[in-house]
Amino acid sequence: MQDKKKEPWDQYGAYLHLDKILDAQRPWSNEAGKPAHDEMLFIIFHQVYELWFKQILFELDDVCARMSGKTLDDRDLLPVLKHLDRIVSIMRILVKQLDVLETMTNQDFTDFREYLKTASGFQSGQFRLIETRLGLRREDRLRVFHGQFDDNLCPASRKTIKETEQTPSLFDLVDRWLSRTPFIEKSGYKFWESYREAVYKILDERKKAANDNLDPEALKAELEAIDKNRKKFDGIFDPEEHKKGHWRMSWRALQAGLFITVYRNEPALQIPFRLLSLIMDIDELFALWRYRHALMTQRMVGFSMGTGGSAGYGYLMQTLEKHRIFTDLFGLSTYLIPQRALPPLPDEISGEMGYSYAKQR
Amino acid sequence: MQDKKKEPWDQYGAYLHLDKILDAQRPWSNEAGKPAHDEMLFIIFHQVYELWFKQILFELDDVCARMSGKTLDDRDLLPVLKHLDRIVSIMRILVKQLDVLETMTNQDFTDFREYLKTASGFQSGQFRLIETRLGLRREDRLRVFHGQFDDNLCPASRKTIKETEQTPSLFDLVDRWLSRTPFIEKSGYKFWESYREAVYKILDERKKAANDNLDPEALKAELEAIDKNRKKFDGIFDPEEHKKGHWRMSWRALQAGLFITVYRNEPALQIPFRLLSLIMDIDELFALWRYRHALMTQRMVGFSMGTGGSAGYGYLMQTLEKHRIFTDLFGLSTYLIPQRALPPLPDEISGEMGYSYAKQR
Amino acid sequence: MQDKKKEPWDQYGAYLHLDKILDAQRPWSNEAGKPAHDEMLFIIFHQVYELWFKQILFELDDVCARMSGKTLDDRDLLPVLKHLDRIVSIMRILVKQLDVLETMTNQDFTDFREYLKTASGFQSGQFRLIETRLGLRREDRLRVFHGQFDDNLCPASRKTIKETEQTPSLFDLVDRWLSRTPFIEKSGYKFWESYREAVYKILDERKKAANDNLDPEALKAELEAIDKNRKKFDGIFDPEEHKKGHWRMSWRALQAGLFITVYRNEPALQIPFRLLSLIMDIDELFALWRYRHALMTQRMVGFSMGTGGSAGYGYLMQTLEKHRIFTDLFGLSTYLIPQRALPPLPDEISGEMGYSYAKQR
Amino acid sequence: MQDKKKEPWDQYGAYLHLDKILDAQRPWSNEAGKPAHDEMLFIIFHQVYELWFKQILFELDDVCARMSGKTLDDRDLLPVLKHLDRIVSIMRILVKQLDVLETMTNQDFTDFREYLKTASGFQSGQFRLIETRLGLRREDRLRVFHGQFDDNLCPASRKTIKETEQTPSLFDLVDRWLSRTPFIEKSGYKFWESYREAVYKILDERKKAANDNLDPEALKAELEAIDKNRKKFDGIFDPEEHKKGHWRMSWRALQAGLFITVYRNEPALQIPFRLLSLIMDIDELFALWRYRHALMTQRMVGFSMGTGGSAGYGYLMQTLEKHRIFTDLFGLSTYLIPQRALPPLPDEISGEMGYSYAKQR
Repeated sequence: MQDKKKEPWDQYGAYLHLDKILDAQRPWSNEAGKPAHDEMLFIIFHQVYELWFKQILFELDDVCARMSGKTLDDRDLLPVLKHLDRIVSIMRILVKQLDVLETMTNQDFTDFREYLKTASGFQSGQFRLIETRLGLRREDRLRVFHGQFDDNLCPASRKTIKETEQTPSLFDLVDRWLSRTPFIEKSGYKFWESYREAVYKILDERKKAANDNLDPEALKAELEAIDKNRKKFDGIFDPEEHKKGHWRMSWRALQAGLFITVYRNEPALQIPFRLLSLIMDIDELFALWRYRHALMTQRMVGFSMGTGGSAGYGYLMQTLEKHRIFTDLFGLSTYLIPQRALPPLPDEISGEMGYSYAKQR
Repeated sequence: MQDKKKEPWDQYGAYLHLDKILDAQRPWSNEAGKPAHDEMLFIIFHQVYELWFKQILFELDDVCARMSGKTLDDRDLLPVLKHLDRIVSIMRILVKQLDVLETMTNQDFTDFREYLKTASGFQSGQFRLIETRLGLRREDRLRVFHGQFDDNLCPASRKTIKETEQTPSLFDLVDRWLSRTPFIEKSGYKFWESYREAVYKILDERKKAANDNLDPEALKAELEAIDKNRKKFDGIFDPEEHKKGHWRMSWRALQAGLFITVYRNEPALQIPFRLLSLIMDIDELFALWRYRHALMTQRMVGFSMGTGGSAGYGYLMQTLEKHRIFTDLFGLSTYLIPQRALPPLPDEISGEMGYSYAKQR
Repeated sequence: MQDKKKEPWDQYGAYLHLDKILDAQRPWSNEAGKPAHDEMLFIIFHQVYELWFKQILFELDDVCARMSGKTLDDRDLLPVLKHLDRIVSIMRILVKQLDVLETMTNQDFTDFREYLKTASGFQSGQFRLIETRLGLRREDRLRVFHGQFDDNLCPASRKTIKETEQTPSLFDLVDRWLSRTPFIEKSGYKFWESYREAVYKILDERKKAANDNLDPEALKAELEAIDKNRKKFDGIFDPEEHKKGHWRMSWRALQAGLFITVYRNEPALQIPFRLLSLIMDIDELFALWRYRHALMTQRMVGFSMGTGGSAGYGYLMQTLEKHRIFTDLFGLSTYLIPQRALPPLPDEISGEMGYSYAKQR
Repeated sequence: MQDKKKEPWDQYGAYLHLDKILDAQRPWSNEAGKPAHDEMLFIIFHQVYELWFKQILFELDDVCARMSGKTLDDRDLLPVLKHLDRIVSIMRILVKQLDVLETMTNQDFTDFREYLKTASGFQSGQFRLIETRLGLRREDRLRVFHGQFDDNLCPASRKTIKETEQTPSLFDLVDRWLSRTPFIEKSGYKFWESYREAVYKILDERKKAANDNLDPEALKAELEAIDKNRKKFDGIFDPEEHKKGHWRMSWRALQAGLFITVYRNEPALQIPFRLLSLIMDIDELFALWRYRHALMTQRMVGFSMGTGGSAGYGYLMQTLEKHRIFTDLFGLSTYLIPQRALPPLPDEISGEMGYSYAKQR
């Protein structure tokens, strides 16, 4: 609320608490009596990151709260999309703003690096919390040293992360939300049976074409390829095969993800499809940010260890793959078939997915 | 310096003063009991701006200090370029990050706008200071209401701006530095005489071609065009004409700017040329930022007044041209002639502009 | 289709017709015997623009076709959004890629500028066509010289533009689509009456507060402000006042635009709201592109005329405002009121705007 | 040259050869009678890539030509920097423009993917040529299938690449140029001896501090660390150790690279330092482009094989590290020491590195 102790022209500063924000830059090289010009950039750059991390957490909390209800009310969908989209926008800035840090040369960094001692981005509690909130599990994290990843966080952060681990992550909530998609099994229609039939039809046609046209050697290779392909599809259709696979997402959620992807233009699926796309954008942008971060580290310190004893470039490169969370959504693309081979939806299902709105305009 | 009262895992937070940074977000809609989700973004977005403004001022101070000496030591040139380049990088982020604010819809903004009362970006003392430091003069600013532009700043900012107005701005320093370029008048060589001769030669050839080829009517028009062109060039060659023109930059600085532009590949001019280019980049990016800001304002509040009683879109559009500072450098492009018509530098001048380095590699 | 005359390793080149694409760069400075290195960039840069323009037209044609039907089928909505979103993505690249052209210095440009003669971006038929397709009318264009804007286009482009002028533009189609929004007047509910009532209530409260608290002089000013405000709102509520205003959009479309904006979270309005947002993004990005283009022109040629006799920086700056098309959508923000004052939708209307989908998950 | 057969209003199209450029889009899904809307984007997107590749090659050729002379004339330095900087700008667009392709969904791609048959980005002769020109050697490339990487290029591209392999690459030229840096061994001064002494002094101080302060166990660990560190530095100081290491760059070039990095503010080293920075920017941007490309591939086809039988995501991820070229320059950061420990240059060397220009301003 307007700060009544302040004059009209002081409201802006009071509103943004600029007294705190602009008083929080104290280069340790200054305090050591060897001021290094570029340390100011290093500090402000990381403070900006932490501010944006706070915003990302604020949006994630809201998204998770809206998705945690027994049902996801349709009036909540637009805010969910809006806030995911905002995270995408922020992540784009976080990736891009590494350009600013790269105006510091490696020698500039060396001039104050020794004063940082154990201070390290590894200790960013907010970043670790974002990872946990998104769905990165303790056991999936790359191990560094002997201990747990949160041994080098402050007690408050460690506590928050432990508590957060007890609540459903965005990954869990997306899985649950997908699993409840009403249309994939309804009034006798089963999406995966209908889809499997379409896949088998394609493979049968391919087999027929092979038999008609190929010489024995080529035929043998083609038949093996077709067989391999059929097995690939069984890996997602069959709940037992699914269990044996490397999926983290539940069998039912995967079916729904595929259903939404292929019938994405149906009115009732347009917004769910956009939700999945935004989740993939976020996953991709975190990956991209990790990679730029790794390259920047290599540029600054070569193959040395990172600050705070972190393992530097090598460590960061290993997290590229290992710390991705929604890989299963990307994996779905492995199972697509062309539109022309796609079975049309039964009228009954299709009708239910229309908008009442549709009928009137 | 390492904070000895803190544990190793607390160094990161202590180093960045995260206790202050992350405790400075208090939405006034919350305090009014009507929490508006998007106000958090609005706050953090502006705090990030203020952090970057602090960094820009830090770099500008360094650049101005290095350029304020009696001579600009050559060992200072790289840091000057590096810090200008950093301002360019930051400005690119400031322009780009408006994408994040645009994830807020106009209705979202309306939901907390009334709580902002007189708080307004107009009150950003740091932004006003940057403008002054770059060279925007009090008398060149767009007048709003009756008073002075700094009437709505807090006393501390007002004081700093008044003091800064007493010291040379970046514009003044660039002008002075250009005026001292040693090569434009040396050992009998005068750049502008040599350049004027080349220009006149082009115009004479054009006149001859016109006389040979054109019918009377076309000839008349062409001769008038040639005459107008000659007058245009006199406007920059002749110090008296220069005074009558709309230039802010001194006559000598303009000659040097043109000299550096056309002979930019000479070893001694490569870095001065890059300095001029970076200054133009900065001018352009501030202009671009103003325009994106204006468009965003129009999107949020239409044609209403801005917060803090500012005049909104219309006001911002008027500052586009009026608040540009280095227009004269852009204006130099009006006076270029093709390389093939450019007089070669006398050997003596050219020789002096070589590197000792050059001779050995 | 696979090019059967080609070997497997030639398919890529055949597919992309690289023989044509990579054989289309013939600098005129080369042909004049005075090769200027940077002309290659100038050519390729503009060819890339023209390729993207072709893509924008392709998407615009699809969007307009889908919106031209008697009703806009809901299965067409996602493709419409997707293709508008793609135009947004492309425009962002077009704005950004001016960075590449700015690696050319003004002197580099001067070295081949004279060979361009009358060739000028003004002659880009595709760009003019995009403007027309979006909804820029012949009579709204800035006049240059005596003739029509398309006098300097080739006959084929002129013909296409004339034909396009006979079909509804995106502006027309958006206006028509908005005018048909079913919910703004239904079963006794009239949106604008309900909204006007809410506005008047706010103004009445403000009047009461003024009467209670203000001294006579302040009261007078406040009452005048309130009266002015009421008139402002009448300008959009009253069809007669609307006609007198500066709106291009029809009265009914404006009401629908406002309705969608304030009730954007209703399931049936989420996608329409996104459509309006994308249209505004496109309008903003074209404006931004014009401004960067103007700044770049000023940097290259100062205050000279542009190539092809165009009026350069001054001309381009004038088109900034004049060539914007969807300003009315931005203008709607002038009429928003806070959420807390917004009348809730009648149950009947609200119920109809639900998804059938909603009821099941 | 102006196309005299054309009217004034046709010059633009004639200049850009738009007849070719805009007539080169023939979706194979159309020819198969199953038009897929998004194939147009796929084609134009790749054509834009190929146009930029042509520009990159044009700039690389110029840079290599200027660096291939017996000496690198100082008047060539600015153009070399300018053209490298342009490649940086273009690469930023190439990375960024993947955003546009990602407006295509995986299902959209599946709808025309089967018509592409063997056509694949793997067959881009220009891209392979860029890699070779930069310095990626045949033997360093990731092996796919049995054959050579250029087996799936057209004969003309294969021939050009073979010829290019016979000429020095950018890597070779940078190595040679660095090796000739005159100042690292001069008039009795040897950079690496002076630098090694400084390193040893730091390590000795560290050893002394350890002996004074640490308990036996910690001391043992610290002494081992110090010893390891000394060996690390010997790996670059000693030409014999250098040979045993994993360096591609010559010993002398590495010393020069380090020299330029640590004394970068010396007037004669400012431009060489910028050259090295730009080379690293390019290396980083190619890496970043590969990663975005890999992620996009995974999004479109999951874990399937890529088009043209390429190995998809897995293959692309393996090239991330393997196809980097200037890693040695990044590796130099491993050997930096703080400014305060850096030995000042002998006056004689320092004096020679000044500008004649410096002395006059």
